[in-house]
Amino acid sequence: MIYLDNSATTKPYKEALDAYRIAAEDYFANPSSLHRKGGEAEKLLRQARASIADLLHVKPGEIVFTSGGTESNNLAIKGTALQYMKRGKHLITSQIEHASTMESFQQLEKMGFDVTYLPVDENGLVSLSDLENALTPQTTLVSIMHVNNEIGAIQPMKKIGHLINDKSQAVYHIDDVQGIGKVPLDINDVQADLISYSAHKFHGLKGNGILIKKPGLILFPLLSGGGQEDAFRSGTENVPGIVAMAKALRLYLEKAASGRKILEEWNEKVLAELYRIDGVSCNSSIKGAPHIINFSVPGIKPEVLIHTLEQKDIYVSTRSACSSKAAEASHVLTSAGFSKEIARTAIRISLSFDTTSEELDIFISELKEALSKLKHVMR
Amino acid sequence: MIYLDNSATTKPYKEALDAYRIAAEDYFANPSSLHRKGGEAEKLLRQARASIADLLHVKPGEIVFTSGGTESNNLAIKGTALQYMKRGKHLITSQIEHASTMESFQQLEKMGFDVTYLPVDENGLVSLSDLENALTPQTTLVSIMHVNNEIGAIQPMKKIGHLINDKSQAVYHIDDVQGIGKVPLDINDVQADLISYSAHKFHGLKGNGILIKKPGLILFPLLSGGGQEDAFRSGTENVPGIVAMAKALRLYLEKAASGRKILEEWNEKVLAELYRIDGVSCNSSIKGAPHIINFSVPGIKPEVLIHTLEQKDIYVSTRSACSSKAAEASHVLTSAGFSKEIARTAIRISLSFDTTSEELDIFISELKEALSKLKHVMR
Repeated sequence: MIYLDNSATTKPYKEALDAYRIAAEDYFANPSSLHRKGGEAEKLLRQARASIADLLHVKPGEIVFTSGGTESNNLAIKGTALQYMKRGKHLITSQIEHASTMESFQQLEKMGFDVTYLPVDENGLVSLSDLENALTPQTTLVSIMHVNNEIGAIQPMKKIGHLINDKSQAVYHIDDVQGIGKVPLDINDVQADLISYSAHKFHGLKGNGILIKKPGLILFPLLSGGGQEDAFRSGTENVPGIVAMAKALRLYLEKAASGRKILEEWNEKVLAELYRIDGVSCNSSIKGAPHIINFSVPGIKPEVLIHTLEQKDIYVSTRSACSSKAAEASHVLTSAGFSKEIARTAIRISLSFDTTSEELDIFISELKEALSKLKHVMR
Repeated sequence: MIYLDNSATTKPYKEALDAYRIAAEDYFANPSSLHRKGGEAEKLLRQARASIADLLHVKPGEIVFTSGGTESNNLAIKGTALQYMKRGKHLITSQIEHASTMESFQQLEKMGFDVTYLPVDENGLVSLSDLENALTPQTTLVSIMHVNNEIGAIQPMKKIGHLINDKSQAVYHIDDVQGIGKVPLDINDVQADLISYSAHKFHGLKGNGILIKKPGLILFPLLSGGGQEDAFRSGTENVPGIVAMAKALRLYLEKAASGRKILEEWNEKVLAELYRIDGVSCNSSIKGAPHIINFSVPGIKPEVLIHTLEQKDIYVSTRSACSSKAAEASHVLTSAGFSKEIARTAIRISLSFDTTSEELDIFISELKEALSKLKHVMR
């Protein structure tokens, strides 16, 4: 299997699954229970939290465990907007965010909030002057994704953070679900208040996520109850999932040290090959993330190409998995100025640190063969 | 280990963990991805949904998968209140609900909703006439738990449902997290619109829950995004967790058929023994749930008793695990009319279908020994 859909989800590491099983069997007690078994589960949870905090260069108290990237984004956005609505009801985001961000803002608009959706240029980048012009004393939140999940655009998070902090009182949220490990982000330098992560994007298990939250910031909880996670996110802690997430994150970041450079080489190599194929147009951002490559073949339906490649055991996708079944053209590509036809026919391949050079060679050669067959049929 | 804290969480079934592993390894793709691996994951998800629907006697389309009981309760309560706020802003619940219900209502009160908290009698039961008097044309939601998690009170869900439907337009939500399998509930007879379940209370895995939602009812989503779960609960589906939940539910309900009767016998036996112990007072509801037994030993701090029993590898709890670290007396016991001293010293044991008669004999004998030692010390 040549799996090139790692931005949709990654294959869980065996070590993460092993850790999950041990925690689920031997530490199944509720960490809130007062007895020793509860205490043991709580200790394991504390260790996992400390380990994740250490890996992400934050303090254990700055971590809020959630059920995934969607919940992290929803909690960051709605939790901030609703908590600080007396201070202001203006919010800022970009036009190329993930559905969990877009839909959160659209829901807030229905509740009476005013949202500015910053446009992006042909590389998917927001402009700092647009952001500066959009900031008002009523702006309580700016939410921007670090690495775009479709075209790999890398926003200037540090410049954005410094601008927000210089010019406003707004809370700064970064969706780093797609960037973690693959595109460096110095958490303590970007001046963010909130950062979202999802375990299953770094070979952890589905149903687990992280929201980094800087001290002092209060969020209006979406899930209220027993007061877990400092009452910002109630619910019995998913200890085995969190332990597996800690394990996966450590292994993943170890691979990232050398893996990042290799991904960059392969990105160049694949793009160079794609540019040479007749009828293929590349949509990836220039200087974008190394693991996301986006191209279109106008005239060929992307589903047809996907199913042709899967016959060869190669798995690629259209755009965000979360929106892949919607019929419309990608809002990311149209916002970046691509035509409807390009936006409708986009194919994304997304690499992991485990992708091999040989797999990419096979992908390129099978893609060429598929396209020559399909073009023949289309004629 | 004699584990008598099954209302806090249960030990996952080995079969559920096996199913989890297979799904996580072989069906790791994102069910929303268009390629075949995505399709296979989607098919597995569809099968699990159909299996759970069948076991719960509802339709597959009536199931919303969530991250657990807390999310199910929050989504049911806030999702209904916010969706139907133009119709009215009055809500009804009881004084003895779980923290995830209580805190949801308290949050809604801060947002301008008016909440009636129905009182309960000495058995923890709400009165139908109180409910009838509380219902107004502005009431949009009544949320009542089936089986109380501390004293085992079983509310008359069917009578409540019929009353609500006869006298009002309100949505009816049942928190059945503690009742499932152990106290029968005919889902199609109680006339509920929403019912909450949590996998880790029936030997499934933490981080997974169900909200049954009747057709036509719209909920204001708490987690917006990619539109999964009919857009009522977005986020990449936790396919392995859901598959494990389906497996656990089937095994659990198979055991329930004969297990319920055995639990009833043991409940009587344990209560009879407890009544005979000097200084022990029983707090369980008369005709309450068979798996929950609550008693107090005034003068002895419950933590001390818990830690004494854990020396013998016996695990019991104070009250709801979610509130066990709070210093105040149990709101459930005080609402049912028990004194502060009784409410402060309450111990809960909660059984599973795997609890054995021998384990309960050992528990009773070790409890007696612990109490005689502790009383000696206290004197």
